[in-house]
Amino acid sequence: MEDPALASMTFLNEVTARYPNALSFAPGRPAEDRFDIQSVHCRLERFCDHLSTDLGYGPAEVRRTLCQYGRTSGIVQHLIARHLEVDEEMRVDPESIVVTVGCQEAMFLALRSLRRDERDVVLAVAPTYVGLTGAARLVDMPVVPVASGTTGVDLADLAAKLHQARERGLHPRACYVVPDFANPSGLRLELETRRELLALAAREGILLLEDNPYGMFHDGSGRLPTLKALDTDRTVVYLGSFAKTVLPGARVGYLVADQRVRDAQGQVGGFAEQLSRIKSMVTVNTSPISQAVIGGALLEADFSLARATSGERQIYQRNLAHVVRGLESRFRRCPDVSWNTPGGGFFIVVNVPFTVDDELLERSGREFGVLWTPMSYFHDGKEGDNQLRLSCSSLSGEQLEEGLNRLATLFADLGVRHVDRDADSMPDCSSVSADITVRSRVVAL
Amino acid sequence: MEDPALASMTFLNEVTARYPNALSFAPGRPAEDRFDIQSVHCRLERFCDHLSTDLGYGPAEVRRTLCQYGRTSGIVQHLIARHLEVDEEMRVDPESIVVTVGCQEAMFLALRSLRRDERDVVLAVAPTYVGLTGAARLVDMPVVPVASGTTGVDLADLAAKLHQARERGLHPRACYVVPDFANPSGLRLELETRRELLALAAREGILLLEDNPYGMFHDGSGRLPTLKALDTDRTVVYLGSFAKTVLPGARVGYLVADQRVRDAQGQVGGFAEQLSRIKSMVTVNTSPISQAVIGGALLEADFSLARATSGERQIYQRNLAHVVRGLESRFRRCPDVSWNTPGGGFFIVVNVPFTVDDELLERSGREFGVLWTPMSYFHDGKEGDNQLRLSCSSLSGEQLEEGLNRLATLFADLGVRHVDRDADSMPDCSSVSADITVRSRVVAL
Repeated sequence: MEDPALASMTFLNEVTARYPNALSFAPGRPAEDRFDIQSVHCRLERFCDHLSTDLGYGPAEVRRTLCQYGRTSGIVQHLIARHLEVDEEMRVDPESIVVTVGCQEAMFLALRSLRRDERDVVLAVAPTYVGLTGAARLVDMPVVPVASGTTGVDLADLAAKLHQARERGLHPRACYVVPDFANPSGLRLELETRRELLALAAREGILLLEDNPYGMFHDGSGRLPTLKALDTDRTVVYLGSFAKTVLPGARVGYLVADQRVRDAQGQVGGFAEQLSRIKSMVTVNTSPISQAVIGGALLEADFSLARATSGERQIYQRNLAHVVRGLESRFRRCPDVSWNTPGGGFFIVVNVPFTVDDELLERSGREFGVLWTPMSYFHDGKEGDNQLRLSCSSLSGEQLEEGLNRLATLFADLGVRHVDRDADSMPDCSSVSADITVRSRVVAL
Repeated sequence: MEDPALASMTFLNEVTARYPNALSFAPGRPAEDRFDIQSVHCRLERFCDHLSTDLGYGPAEVRRTLCQYGRTSGIVQHLIARHLEVDEEMRVDPESIVVTVGCQEAMFLALRSLRRDERDVVLAVAPTYVGLTGAARLVDMPVVPVASGTTGVDLADLAAKLHQARERGLHPRACYVVPDFANPSGLRLELETRRELLALAAREGILLLEDNPYGMFHDGSGRLPTLKALDTDRTVVYLGSFAKTVLPGARVGYLVADQRVRDAQGQVGGFAEQLSRIKSMVTVNTSPISQAVIGGALLEADFSLARATSGERQIYQRNLAHVVRGLESRFRRCPDVSWNTPGGGFFIVVNVPFTVDDELLERSGREFGVLWTPMSYFHDGKEGDNQLRLSCSSLSGEQLEEGLNRLATLFADLGVRHVDRDADSMPDCSSVSADITVRSRVVAL
């Protein structure tokens, strides 16, 4: 069981551990400023209070809810439903929610349930988050890439890919899309594109798997309605995450699956129920202690994570702007280096004139003290060889500045330096690549 | 994605929720006497102290360890390794341990990693824990049942099944076995059987998947070495659980996988590393908050869960004896009702003269206020139609007594009453089935 997508997420985590002093633009980790062990305790208590005060549980029932085995679908669905109503104007029946071990398990369950035989395929807007391609590989479901174009999803390409797949006898089951500041492209779907995508999916009889980890982190211009909020035909399965909005360490995500499905016995039931049955054979249930921490946070925030994360939103917005300015000041006169300017989220994609792979990443960590993500991860190794992704979410302003310096030194070492020698056209690249002191200091770490 | 094994574990959880006042002999839940929210807080703190005091972490590093994303393989492997040394005389490299979301994820990961193509099969001692058959179904891996016989595993049948499978072009990859007080049979492998099983597996080139949730809960006669402790050839992958020894609500289990494996690129590496890569696409990592609760409990117990759970062991031993005595007093003169007498664990199997299925279980909960588990769950629906499993782990003495009364009333309702009419041979059955007051009271719940 080996492939690039499977290896990459582990590599991201482990290379970070290997070079603890490297400045990391690699993993999409949330800012750590507000991490606080005390708040874990408080949220646990807050949830217990909720069980006894709001739901009338006795002490033994409270203990049982947190400590014993429990319902596969979870213990905080009613709080998640309230949050979705407050923040996303989505009205969902708590019974259509399944709480999962992070959004990764949500993706896995959705794909596993949609995979009936070797003809089933999932489409995904490319470049695609590695968690989706990895989960698809685990369930032996090919991923058909759909171009993102300039709108975040190229609808003509989506229609063409559906057509081609069917011509080849395949059964396209769903299309995976991150409508808000996608990982890694940073693209956001406009309202009109959302509506058109929903109409196309309904027409074609496929589900949309909407993953929304970054929607809260816009540039101040406000949020757009999620696909699920616009969904009148139960076309969308919504994949939720609290890793960026509350706490990665809780490992709590969820699915909203309000579809009706027919099982092998011909019985019609909720899709959520079917997903729960699969979950019971993967993780049994999500730790109620973890769920309590998230439940407590939702109660504490009065269900609005948009409000509770406004501080983080400003951090991420400031960081994105910082990196864009930093790239501009260092590389604006290097014609082979370019980048995008997303309206939110964590990620910037940089185009470079050299090959970007795991080997270079390892060397960048070891010799230059800076980490980032090869974009080839998000194309299943088939494209993106001259691109890297910078995540701006978890570094301070000073670290971003120093990280960009180290990146510039790496770039210089990789040939961008040669361009510098043409001092007339490339003064900025030259000035950065000459800063050898930075590199030496890092090597000594 | 539907089958009896998949549905059964969810059904167990949900039927329990549906009849909260029923006395449940159904799920293998640990006793709740020692559940305590305060101890969750204390264990979290204990683990944080360990990070700072023993490992020298600074405050930010402690916060990051608990709150941020982390290593896929976990953060408490060093503590688990110490526990295995203290309690099981197993010396394992912490790097060969992968922490999982309960033992269920451990089973899933092991099977997924062993499943290369449609010829791969897993053997399992029958009757088999539903979690294993469900995980096998999820990865499309047929389960070949091996008779348990009287020794806990019929080695001649195992050899025959391996031979037959290979003759049919199949590739047997591993055999799943619960050597200590198996769920549901209650059987324990003697030392000599353990050695013979290890030798057979090594000779045949298959792995043993050893699942050991109940080993601590013997009848006072002490424990036998685990297969993994006797394993000199790296034949055993050990599947660990803390659900019964510490806390189900933490959802923390683990694998010990010290094998060396070759990946698709021909690289030789640790099996644990390969399992981690698969895990990264299922759940990314196990909640570090949950892991901290378990880590804190291991520290608190000075690594000996055998010592820390001696109180629970006595509860379970007393409960098993209570149920055996209770069955004896109610059914000893009913020739169609019989049961086993396990030397430990949670479970007793009762043979009955009527059909035992989900419908009867539902009716038993609704009308008689007593729950149990159909044994057909553990034969993938193919056998066990006249057997039910009683779990004795989570009821008090008074509840056991009342539960047995309700069970006797159910049995009487199902025809065991007809036998009662032969007053000469069946006086005990008669006396129980006449106790209609119990039933009426329950119906009123």
